[in-house]
Amino acid sequence: MNTTSLLTALQWRYATKQFDATRKIDAETWNAIEESLILTPSSFGLQPWKFIVVGDPAIRSELRAASWNQPQVTDASHLVVLTTRTDLTQSDIDAWINRMAEVQGCPTENFAPLAGMISGFSSSMSADARRAWNSRQVYIALGQLMTTAAMLNIDTCPLEGIDPAAYDRSLGLENSGYATVVACALGFRDPADKYAAAPKARFDRSRVIEHVGKA
Amino acid sequence: MNTTSLLTALQWRYATKQFDATRKIDAETWNAIEESLILTPSSFGLQPWKFIVVGDPAIRSELRAASWNQPQVTDASHLVVLTTRTDLTQSDIDAWINRMAEVQGCPTENFAPLAGMISGFSSSMSADARRAWNSRQVYIALGQLMTTAAMLNIDTCPLEGIDPAAYDRSLGLENSGYATVVACALGFRDPADKYAAAPKARFDRSRVIEHVGKA
Repeated sequence: MNTTSLLTALQWRYATKQFDATRKIDAETWNAIEESLILTPSSFGLQPWKFIVVGDPAIRSELRAASWNQPQVTDASHLVVLTTRTDLTQSDIDAWINRMAEVQGCPTENFAPLAGMISGFSSSMSADARRAWNSRQVYIALGQLMTTAAMLNIDTCPLEGIDPAAYDRSLGLENSGYATVVACALGFRDPADKYAAAPKARFDRSRVIEHVGKA
Repeated sequence: MNTTSLLTALQWRYATKQFDATRKIDAETWNAIEESLILTPSSFGLQPWKFIVVGDPAIRSELRAASWNQPQVTDASHLVVLTTRTDLTQSDIDAWINRMAEVQGCPTENFAPLAGMISGFSSSMSADARRAWNSRQVYIALGQLMTTAAMLNIDTCPLEGIDPAAYDRSLGLENSGYATVVACALGFRDPADKYAAAPKARFDRSRVIEHVGKA
């Protein structure tokens, strides 16, 4: 991809407020978006998350009520709820080590130094800190999700203004070891969405980029 | 961009451990990467961050020492330190409202309802919660950064295993209102990096994607 196409796609994207409720993302494109979620990088590769794709209209309505009634929740083609593991246990670490050994076709013992490093890092944190750390990883997934969607000309709206506890109840996540962090609606902008036409606003480069020495 | 190119780029990407220290990202590509950072979406558009591009070799060496001596810090073509605003004040909110009014060519009064909503949301949180919220936004930027770099065939290595306080000292960030969250090295993989050849490991789709109702 060249820089012009990349920047055109990033300039094109915006937080879509009004989706065309009649248009659905096709299966091939949706599959690629799920693959992109799966491929998201995370610290130590631990993937402390689960991504819930909510199609059920009744549940979407419940979630809309738990989202300040934002219409994106029901009108967008797809809705993903990004959840985090509420903790990081030895069992999570073991699952990851076993998976790596499986994919790379080698004994788990090869990963013993890595496993020790992750355990040491994890046990140095409080349970709250581990959960906060996991939640931050979920935001990498949110970033990759919105960016890759833009590359595929799919509109998105990140949804932080939600009631995570109500989401957890609607999705049966209570005591599941996973909890809602943030959601993202995906689909196609309604041509009537006035926000689509607003000039994109960002702070001036000098406020957000600083150079220390010649790059 | 089609789904095959997208997934090929995401499969190609990995956390590069060994960079080719002789290769530099060209100016046009680097400019696009900075633009991508600037265009990162954030909650309410507040952009609670500053991205520091560290070219100075002496500072890079200091940062390497504060990063478990990871060679990526000095050997990669570019190093970005992603910092967060340590708080979110009325002055930050005003700056953003003023900037939107400027870009969109309308009076700041038009944004009064939004300004009130942001202030209400912000003041409902403790200072610690605001900082944590800002830090999570920075991870959206990290996600967009790694994803867009992959689209441009630029290698990356996210660096969480760093001493943020030492970074802050080296970069003169103490009491600046910004603090280091995470860093990212960017450049070109060394052909000798054994991690480049390892099969990409992710959990099975069934562990990380769940469908509630037909999508």
